[in-house]
Amino acid sequence: MIPSIEWTEENTVKMIDQTVLPFELKFLELNDYRDVAHSIKIMNIRGAPAIGVAAAMGMALATIEYKILPKKDFITSMEEAANLIQSTRPTASNLFWAVNRMLKIITSAPDDPPNISELVIEEAKIMAQEDINVNKNIGKNGAKLLADNDIVLTHCNAGSLATVQYGTALAPVRYAIEQGKRINVIADETRPRLQGARLTAYELHYDKIPVKVISDTSSGLLMRLGKINKVIVGTDRVTSDAVFNKIGTYLVALAAKDNSIPFYVAAPTSTLSLHETIKDVVIEQRDSSEVSHILGKLRIVPEGVECLNYAFDITPFKLVTGIITEDGVFTPQELLKKYK
Amino acid sequence: MIPSIEWTEENTVKMIDQTVLPFELKFLELNDYRDVAHSIKIMNIRGAPAIGVAAAMGMALATIEYKILPKKDFITSMEEAANLIQSTRPTASNLFWAVNRMLKIITSAPDDPPNISELVIEEAKIMAQEDINVNKNIGKNGAKLLADNDIVLTHCNAGSLATVQYGTALAPVRYAIEQGKRINVIADETRPRLQGARLTAYELHYDKIPVKVISDTSSGLLMRLGKINKVIVGTDRVTSDAVFNKIGTYLVALAAKDNSIPFYVAAPTSTLSLHETIKDVVIEQRDSSEVSHILGKLRIVPEGVECLNYAFDITPFKLVTGIITEDGVFTPQELLKKYK
Repeated sequence: MIPSIEWTEENTVKMIDQTVLPFELKFLELNDYRDVAHSIKIMNIRGAPAIGVAAAMGMALATIEYKILPKKDFITSMEEAANLIQSTRPTASNLFWAVNRMLKIITSAPDDPPNISELVIEEAKIMAQEDINVNKNIGKNGAKLLADNDIVLTHCNAGSLATVQYGTALAPVRYAIEQGKRINVIADETRPRLQGARLTAYELHYDKIPVKVISDTSSGLLMRLGKINKVIVGTDRVTSDAVFNKIGTYLVALAAKDNSIPFYVAAPTSTLSLHETIKDVVIEQRDSSEVSHILGKLRIVPEGVECLNYAFDITPFKLVTGIITEDGVFTPQELLKKYK
Repeated sequence: MIPSIEWTEENTVKMIDQTVLPFELKFLELNDYRDVAHSIKIMNIRGAPAIGVAAAMGMALATIEYKILPKKDFITSMEEAANLIQSTRPTASNLFWAVNRMLKIITSAPDDPPNISELVIEEAKIMAQEDINVNKNIGKNGAKLLADNDIVLTHCNAGSLATVQYGTALAPVRYAIEQGKRINVIADETRPRLQGARLTAYELHYDKIPVKVISDTSSGLLMRLGKINKVIVGTDRVTSDAVFNKIGTYLVALAAKDNSIPFYVAAPTSTLSLHETIKDVVIEQRDSSEVSHILGKLRIVPEGVECLNYAFDITPFKLVTGIITEDGVFTPQELLKKYK
């Protein structure tokens, strides 16, 4: 398992370029926060936790560039850097959370810019480590749900590549395997952007964890045939009545329910937004070319035919067996009681 | 609407080459039954009703080639031709049905080979016309279920291209539009072979029927959002407890049920196999390269990762609102009562 992003000893940001996976394992090493912002925008790095850490590291790079300025100018420049980084993917909540955490240090620390830069770099490293720790605890809590010889379906990529390391939905699988359980994974390919076929398959195969890829149309049949017996997915946001995750998650949850298969959601507490309900959330619509073309390379839909491309799905709590956080495993009702 | 296959005045078989749709509208004109067999195998023509007619026309071509032989040799040669045609797609029931219908004429007619050839050619033409008539009646019966401004989801292609003309699942849409109703179609792209994105989108757009394509992951959300209000799909086989159709159909049916949206199946009576139950049917598994590569052109799954590729889905009767045959619309219980 390779970290998707890290702060190097040379004070650069090193990340896997996920746009060329699984065909090439290429690393980007960036020393300009503008390049980090661009890499978030074009999805060299993706996955809410990983984006948050990338944003924090981008802010850290900016402090290195601006620490020679007088403090007032330093703060002004850092606010400009923050705006640029936040503009890259306007709906990713972790982006704002991470940048604001950095801005708070920058504007409230009594130190000089060079010392503030040290503090911000340290904070970025801490955030990366925090992410790994949260994921490991999700793994530990979730592994208790998995038995020897389980076949686990996951949708999209909520693995190591979506975080700094270890993953959210895939953490319980990794932990259970470390415990000696034999676990097989089925990866939904996850159209339109194919994060399952490309990224989940890649990272599990790389780590020698057994994985097979299926078309998104196949999960229901495999459950009927007894070839899947647990589901774990990640999430971008949990409201008081539903789980928001990659488009297609709701269909998987329906099939799990109809076949009495447990449906678990791995949710770092940073994704909980329990003051909201379904109606508060706007589902992002992305460019229709993601549907009409495969990975920007191969057209599959006739010219002139429109495509719809909603990026996220709504899975109501009635379909959710358990939510795995870094604190434990909870039914939706228990989750509301504990965190709301 | 172009016929997918026809018998020409020059005694050749003319068919649309569906492997290059939607990017090219190319016709094949064949006068050797071996070429017809090959075209079924490589899926220049597909869809159970269309395959049946292609097989019948292939047999007709063979009679032209062999009618100069003495009757005994003629029959032997025709049996060899039948074997070749039947070996192309071993699970397509219409193939066997059509070839056997022809063999019955060939072996039982008292005539000489040249006269038998005339009879077989006539029979092939009749079968093509029968298919159109059945589809038109399905359209007439199904159109009663559609209201002005309905948005109809369909999965895979059970349209004109899957039949001689008109289609099964798309026939009610065509008929309702002829009646002046405004109907919009949503086409599931239908991985792995993308018959929805390629063929359903193509034929509806060609006929100026409004159609939008979605990834297979999106149908549940669109139903939740009120952007789909009816579902009509085709079928390859109806047993006494379930509908067998393209992989992914079961997930669509689950989502329809959860959103109280009617789920209809267009089923020519030739697809009814009510003496069978779910356990009698073996689900065809196809080459995993259909999942790992898009249309044989673009790899999306890492090298070394296995894919599962089940071609058909099982949709239990509890999820089916109505079955549309050329005789009328029936609940599953009514269907059993009428046809079993």
